[in-house]
Amino acid sequence: MLAEIVAVGDELLYGDIINGNAAWLGRQLADVGIRVATSVVVGDDVEMIERALRAAAGRADVVIVSGGLGPTQDDLTREGIAAAAGVALRRDEFLESLLRRRFTELRRDVPAMNYRQADLPEGAEPLPNGPGTAPGIRIEIGRAALYALPGVPHELYAMFTASVLPDLLRRAGQPSVVVHRVLRTAGIWESSVAEALSGEVDRLRDVGNPTIAFLASEGQTRVRVTARAGDRAEALRLIAPVETAARAALGPAVYGVDDETLAGVVGAWLATLGATVAVAESLTGGRLAAALTETPGASTYFRGGAVVYATDTKASVLGVDAEILATDGAVSARAAAALAAGARDLFGATWGLATTGVAGPDEQEGKPVGTLHLGLAGPDGTTTRSLRLPGDRPRIQTFAVVQALDVLRRTLSGLPVHGAGPTGEIPAS
Amino acid sequence: MLAEIVAVGDELLYGDIINGNAAWLGRQLADVGIRVATSVVVGDDVEMIERALRAAAGRADVVIVSGGLGPTQDDLTREGIAAAAGVALRRDEFLESLLRRRFTELRRDVPAMNYRQADLPEGAEPLPNGPGTAPGIRIEIGRAALYALPGVPHELYAMFTASVLPDLLRRAGQPSVVVHRVLRTAGIWESSVAEALSGEVDRLRDVGNPTIAFLASEGQTRVRVTARAGDRAEALRLIAPVETAARAALGPAVYGVDDETLAGVVGAWLATLGATVAVAESLTGGRLAAALTETPGASTYFRGGAVVYATDTKASVLGVDAEILATDGAVSARAAAALAAGARDLFGATWGLATTGVAGPDEQEGKPVGTLHLGLAGPDGTTTRSLRLPGDRPRIQTFAVVQALDVLRRTLSGLPVHGAGPTGEIPAS
Repeated sequence: MLAEIVAVGDELLYGDIINGNAAWLGRQLADVGIRVATSVVVGDDVEMIERALRAAAGRADVVIVSGGLGPTQDDLTREGIAAAAGVALRRDEFLESLLRRRFTELRRDVPAMNYRQADLPEGAEPLPNGPGTAPGIRIEIGRAALYALPGVPHELYAMFTASVLPDLLRRAGQPSVVVHRVLRTAGIWESSVAEALSGEVDRLRDVGNPTIAFLASEGQTRVRVTARAGDRAEALRLIAPVETAARAALGPAVYGVDDETLAGVVGAWLATLGATVAVAESLTGGRLAAALTETPGASTYFRGGAVVYATDTKASVLGVDAEILATDGAVSARAAAALAAGARDLFGATWGLATTGVAGPDEQEGKPVGTLHLGLAGPDGTTTRSLRLPGDRPRIQTFAVVQALDVLRRTLSGLPVHGAGPTGEIPAS
Repeated sequence: MLAEIVAVGDELLYGDIINGNAAWLGRQLADVGIRVATSVVVGDDVEMIERALRAAAGRADVVIVSGGLGPTQDDLTREGIAAAAGVALRRDEFLESLLRRRFTELRRDVPAMNYRQADLPEGAEPLPNGPGTAPGIRIEIGRAALYALPGVPHELYAMFTASVLPDLLRRAGQPSVVVHRVLRTAGIWESSVAEALSGEVDRLRDVGNPTIAFLASEGQTRVRVTARAGDRAEALRLIAPVETAARAALGPAVYGVDDETLAGVVGAWLATLGATVAVAESLTGGRLAAALTETPGASTYFRGGAVVYATDTKASVLGVDAEILATDGAVSARAAAALAAGARDLFGATWGLATTGVAGPDEQEGKPVGTLHLGLAGPDGTTTRSLRLPGDRPRIQTFAVVQALDVLRRTLSGLPVHGAGPTGEIPAS
């Protein structure tokens, strides 16, 4: 079964919004063994929408459309679908009454245009929208099943999961099952990961199944092993030896699998050990705390943090010795150690984790952009790690968070932290 | 002149990475008056890449390709371009020597596969990659000019700006100029924005130029006015009366224009007033500090912040009275006021800005998901604002940051803050 994704919206074409929905949908389809041939973005233009939908419906078994179902004048997906299907667009009385009731419940004065959301192409069925207002649409165009979903992400997630996915599984009958297994690594370069696994990659190239792909983002490389089989158990049997070989090659760099996050893995370790952490941040400006608080239930192990952005606050809030700030400076290993201990003590945590460095664009204290000093203070004392990170300001800030979390992870799980040596690039593990 | 964007990568199709490059490229092309017909994603498969490039080159004047130029085995864009152009792929000696020199400078042991980055389709020219390693490619396919850029965002930005954009401007000759003007609003619903401007939208629908589009994200709605003209001055003349009418209709909800950020506008106000701010965060977990520290130069006005995630730290770190925590609770207007004053005093700032609430997925202290109390402490005392936000955990956290920044913005610029009244949805302005 083959699918195409069509995302509608000028804001996507012209870059005001990034196409997160297509990414999410692609993942969902792959997870149930539906291959995605291509993913397309078109603007808020009935003719362009119609053309894209006709083309997709001509090539694929399933077409998922997102966006353009809202109440405003530039929401034209309903019109585009009707045109592609060659049918009329009609105001559906039942949907209209549902909308009227919803607006009354919300006690909102609703502009008349909002009732465009009750328009339905002839022969189509509406899909209920739990969290939102605009109904989705299901319609057959030729031999393709077309599903139109709202562009608002959490509405799209809910509608796809509740109404579309069950439909697709029924249609697929005996799906060709695709299973992904992702190994997540931190602290080593993507090309080092690829080189470590080049033996496996070469071996698999002849076999063709499973396949290995490398997905790099700031400071993290994911290794995705993908197998196709008649059923999930067989796919997992194909993956297992590849995963074993990859783990042996990558060692302590592997921190988790599939959708685990580095912050989540750190949190799980802290919870298991009955330990807590507090953070002290300078260049990362709150991003380290934000990463730790993404995971629901973080209050079990995260006490809090201090963003001591102004240099004097490192002393006044976290008690860093003025002598350190005067001699080594705020961007130094000694400052990182003092910040970590200060956070641990102020927040009454088991561990204190600190970042200080130069995010850019300017140098600081004569230290170059990308300088990073990490501090970790625990029951047995304090350690530091110093690095030089590549990239621009936002990339350095993100990279610094990953490095900080990885130092904590390795320490908690008894793995070697790369030597807390002189400033240098991330060494290959 | 018409363009198509082709992004290459299984990780994009299957949702491991979101297509930020296509968004950025779409914006760049629009800004110089080049219309983007469509934007496509294909996987790491030579045949699929070839097919997509042939199709795009057959329809458009310009094809921009991103991704698949790296050193690993799944980087197949060079092969795809050669196949689409019907030419051979050759190892370029000059590029090979450049790569060898770069690797020597970086003192990196380089796997042999990295030299695939020196392969070039016959008849193509390389594009230099300043920050990165993989050269880009420029080649004519039929009447289309095709440019292939690396997928790493900051390498793509640099190469497009330095090598592709000047080329496109030369080719366009007398471009049809497209100018966008974006008004950025916070604190009112998207449909209220659309309703407020429905008169303008109706009027313009007949004229067709300029056009108005509404772009909503958590708590912010952008109004984009787009005009086409023979030159930039004429386009700006077309935009001006529409902008004036929109500002009159939207009032204090407009916080900035074009690419200004709410945090940047707040920072500019603080800098102008010679004032500083410190933050106290609970549910937002560091995101408010992170927003304020995105802007280079934030150290001028941002003193720092305390993420007092664990309830007791609200008392122990920021001095919130235990009586407030015991009676009203940590999620309350009184707690928000005390947190704001605590942050202001601990960090020695002019202003203290605090967030406390329930991000979910669970209730807290019997208060429902989405509850938000904001506190603002200044030279003349403390105010609070209470709201109920829609959405799930990440959406609520982001929305809360926007609301907090907007309260500070309105206060600094002497605009009315929506009444600090009982909990309720964001009222239309």
